[in-house]
Amino acid sequence: MDPALLLIILFNIGITVEAMTGALAAGERRMDLIGVLVVATVTAFGGGTVRDLLIGRYPLIWVANPELLLLTSIAALIMVAIARFARQLEKTFLALDALGLATFTIVGAQRAMDVGHGLAIASIMGVITGVAGGILRDMLCNRIPLAFRSELYATVSIVAVWLFLIMDYLGVSDALSIPITLVFGFAFRMLALKFHWVVPTFVYQARQHD
Amino acid sequence: MDPALLLIILFNIGITVEAMTGALAAGERRMDLIGVLVVATVTAFGGGTVRDLLIGRYPLIWVANPELLLLTSIAALIMVAIARFARQLEKTFLALDALGLATFTIVGAQRAMDVGHGLAIASIMGVITGVAGGILRDMLCNRIPLAFRSELYATVSIVAVWLFLIMDYLGVSDALSIPITLVFGFAFRMLALKFHWVVPTFVYQARQHD
Amino acid sequence: MDPALLLIILFNIGITVEAMTGALAAGERRMDLIGVLVVATVTAFGGGTVRDLLIGRYPLIWVANPELLLLTSIAALIMVAIARFARQLEKTFLALDALGLATFTIVGAQRAMDVGHGLAIASIMGVITGVAGGILRDMLCNRIPLAFRSELYATVSIVAVWLFLIMDYLGVSDALSIPITLVFGFAFRMLALKFHWVVPTFVYQARQHD
Repeated sequence: MDPALLLIILFNIGITVEAMTGALAAGERRMDLIGVLVVATVTAFGGGTVRDLLIGRYPLIWVANPELLLLTSIAALIMVAIARFARQLEKTFLALDALGLATFTIVGAQRAMDVGHGLAIASIMGVITGVAGGILRDMLCNRIPLAFRSELYATVSIVAVWLFLIMDYLGVSDALSIPITLVFGFAFRMLALKFHWVVPTFVYQARQHD
Repeated sequence: MDPALLLIILFNIGITVEAMTGALAAGERRMDLIGVLVVATVTAFGGGTVRDLLIGRYPLIWVANPELLLLTSIAALIMVAIARFARQLEKTFLALDALGLATFTIVGAQRAMDVGHGLAIASIMGVITGVAGGILRDMLCNRIPLAFRSELYATVSIVAVWLFLIMDYLGVSDALSIPITLVFGFAFRMLALKFHWVVPTFVYQARQHD
Repeated sequence: MDPALLLIILFNIGITVEAMTGALAAGERRMDLIGVLVVATVTAFGGGTVRDLLIGRYPLIWVANPELLLLTSIAALIMVAIARFARQLEKTFLALDALGLATFTIVGAQRAMDVGHGLAIASIMGVITGVAGGILRDMLCNRIPLAFRSELYATVSIVAVWLFLIMDYLGVSDALSIPITLVFGFAFRMLALKFHWVVPTFVYQARQHD
């Protein structure tokens, strides 16, 4: 399959899944349906939006393609309808989310390189695209971002983006580097979940200040 | 009255009232006067600022008109001075806030259309302008945004913006569509408050993860 | 010493110290090392990033100079390594942070004036540059921003920026106005800490709404 087409398909799956995780997070905080739609939308498009604001690239993807907002809104409402099955579907979600993470990371790095940024900024924009949506979701829901506390989430994005960028730098064609990065990112995240790999935690006990 | 002039007057009332609600929220969190001014300013201008960042429209309104910041700062300080009467004034505030919500919504949609966006993006920018200031206020004050949990707040903005856009699309002149939208939005919000209309809430109990 | 060079040196010290305070805040919330790096980076560059987004000035400083991200990441990791000594170093940190606050304030005001903004916006951009990084840090760590509750933090930035801008307006050369502002800002903040000067707090008890 054409790697660009593959990325587009996976991107659409990715925003759909991200919207669904946003809907569930809003439900945990007993938000109303509007809140559900807002949190779902921010989760789905937050990463790309932050990236494009930081590099000053307009129009934003969802502004240029507002039909994507319809897709994520419907996904969020479906999630509300099937929430009772959410726990049974948990593994499916985690797998799709892992695929989305790898996809967003690649798309983000590409978009930064498209406008002339070097490897350092491309890698950062890839990771921001991968994880910032989830971080904004958690801030809207008033909880410590899970990305900083769960099994290798941002780490997967970081390793995947460098794998992709190094292949790109070495002249590996997209037709090869994109599938390899997707498979690697997906497998890495799934293994981290299975074996509970975590990044070492930094615990610091300050004096009381509030 | 000229509808453009009416909007300007209502816009100034709107940012004044928003600044006052921001000041009260800061007071609930025992912030100092600087915090009060920051939260008031973010509440008053946050919606328009988020909108203009998302569509890349510069300069921002308050950057082009910094005297507006003086207006909202004074409003916030007055609120601090008269806080003891805040509860008696609650109904007045809610009425002015309802008017501000409708005003911001119209202004936001207009500003997106000004730079060539279609109905979908104009409606979203209208709603963002209407509600994002309050959401940022609640995030700064570390609480779940009330916009997602109270009586038809964002919903009023959504219905009002589509009423306005459909009239605009059908060729209704601003002199008619703006007052109609304002009256409708105001009445809708006041009725929602009076009869405690709410959007259905989505409650989801996840497994313990923290 | 050339005042521009002095500012650059102090700017680098400032982002280093800010990154370290971000690392400690992440440690208080038991984040993993990725979270530590993210919070450190946001703390160090958040103020300048918010400023440049608000005035639409691209590229952002750290996008143009990604090696700065290496500096702050290393600073954050060093902080993790020496966290056990953090309390003994507390006074050193507070002093360096005070210097950073004054530095960021001047740099922010200059950058706004560079693109043609007047005194009002330059002063606001100076203060945003000085304090927004810490506010974002506290939002990521899910706590009420300390900038609104501790000893004269934002106030120092506000007074310092006006001191600097008035000297600039009166034609005082940078070689004089920059060192004066730095010394003043530093001394003001240190005195505020020593004598526990605070801005009056606004306490408002709302009715129960959640």
